[in-house]
Amino acid sequence: MTTMPSFDQWMKAVQAEMEDALLRHLPATQQIPVRLHEAMHYAVLDGGKRVRPLLVHAAGALFDADARELQRAAAAVEMIHAYSLVHDDMPCMDDDALRRGKPTVHVQYDEACALLVGDALQSQAFDVLSSGNLPPERQLAMVRLLAQASGSLGMCGGQAIDLDSVGLQLTLEELERMHQLKTGALLRVSVLLGALAGKALNDDETAALDAYAAATGLAFQVVDDVLDATADSATLGKTAGKDAADNKPTYVSILGLEQSRALAEQLCVDAHRALQPFGEKARRLRELADLIVQRKA
Amino acid sequence: MTTMPSFDQWMKAVQAEMEDALLRHLPATQQIPVRLHEAMHYAVLDGGKRVRPLLVHAAGALFDADARELQRAAAAVEMIHAYSLVHDDMPCMDDDALRRGKPTVHVQYDEACALLVGDALQSQAFDVLSSGNLPPERQLAMVRLLAQASGSLGMCGGQAIDLDSVGLQLTLEELERMHQLKTGALLRVSVLLGALAGKALNDDETAALDAYAAATGLAFQVVDDVLDATADSATLGKTAGKDAADNKPTYVSILGLEQSRALAEQLCVDAHRALQPFGEKARRLRELADLIVQRKA
Repeated sequence: MTTMPSFDQWMKAVQAEMEDALLRHLPATQQIPVRLHEAMHYAVLDGGKRVRPLLVHAAGALFDADARELQRAAAAVEMIHAYSLVHDDMPCMDDDALRRGKPTVHVQYDEACALLVGDALQSQAFDVLSSGNLPPERQLAMVRLLAQASGSLGMCGGQAIDLDSVGLQLTLEELERMHQLKTGALLRVSVLLGALAGKALNDDETAALDAYAAATGLAFQVVDDVLDATADSATLGKTAGKDAADNKPTYVSILGLEQSRALAEQLCVDAHRALQPFGEKARRLRELADLIVQRKA
Repeated sequence: MTTMPSFDQWMKAVQAEMEDALLRHLPATQQIPVRLHEAMHYAVLDGGKRVRPLLVHAAGALFDADARELQRAAAAVEMIHAYSLVHDDMPCMDDDALRRGKPTVHVQYDEACALLVGDALQSQAFDVLSSGNLPPERQLAMVRLLAQASGSLGMCGGQAIDLDSVGLQLTLEELERMHQLKTGALLRVSVLLGALAGKALNDDETAALDAYAAATGLAFQVVDDVLDATADSATLGKTAGKDAADNKPTYVSILGLEQSRALAEQLCVDAHRALQPFGEKARRLRELADLIVQRKA
């Protein structure tokens, strides 16, 4: 019997495999149009903590999902995430020049290219996810879930609310709702796609995973706000203090630092509780919730 | 026995039904975020000739496809088309203020909103297409075809080549290749999705429909270039003479007006020939090829 790898070993292995999977699921840079494909690779490869792919794989462990199908689902979610960052950084949105310690896509290439990179990455995500080898009915449900998590009632809707909220005083409930869409929807679908790569889910399983994803997703955002207010740009790999400078409502601006940290801890407890029905199989999901709350960047 | 409606009657009926179908497949404007949903409706509804939906329905007639499933496929393709126009009109791309006789989305709303409208419409297209009631394996194949037609090896790739070609002297072959991706890929997938809504296709059927779509798609672009060079903005509902002003290579700039018109006629003949195996069932596809070559706007 082999011993289970440590969380850190598991995480590094998933991250390394993801790099290969993303490369495999992107068009090669030799293909025409070369510059667009190079920019797509620039936007996706060699960057980020791969939180969403880690969630896909951790949820896949619940039902012993096939590794190739998990990589496919994780690549699709990560492409959606990467496209949203590219568009988010553009001058008409957040106008950010630095991302993961590198120039953003519109700075490195140009704005028109960044626009097309985002558009093409979204298409690529649906191409990748619809090309899997799971039972077609389940594969189709996964495509539908990803589309809904990405669109105007998911991530894009959250972005729109975020833009409309600049300079406004949001209540805690309004802030939470915005984040449930803006980042929560994609984190939730990461968990669901990972589990669905293993088997069709019953209502109890879906509800438990939703509760886990909701708590973890919100914790992720609370910690993001805390880090934006306390860490420096070099540690974050992106411009720190942006939220306050942009006059954006955050957990820190509403609750203050200490209460925000306490909320993140409580959400982590909630996430653990939601996983109880899954027993030891949920180990990686538990460890990920801990990581998300304890991360420093 | 009822007499078959005229082409004009058929076309107007499809266009009217499409308006209902698009409305049904978009999130309601009352839903939060209201402004984003209003802008999505603004971008999609009450506009355009609905060429792609007409192709979907015309191809659906080959195999007596279910009307609801055709509307779903047509709505998905039209949302992809509409999103591409919204992004294409933005200042960092074509910087166009007028579309279908109305202010473009970034003018009517703002740039950030236009960016999100396009992003959300793309997601919505995949949500709509993956929610159909066809056999899951075929539905999944349709999603995959749409994703491939939209991405960097399809429409987005054509846009990128178009941008890279400004100010360059393209050969006829390079121009054709650009258009095969930029507009041809989505026209082709319209024909294939319509046919697939009816039944799974064998290789001969796919090849015949591809030949039809290639000829019709190219004819569409040649006529577009002719109209841009000869019609006025009021007739076109968009800014005329843009191509020459932007120093973009076109069929007219390479072949001249008369040869461009002759090419469009020849492509129409090719389109008719490709449809021979389908007999009388291909009537609407034939009529559409004629319309595309003879249109004045």
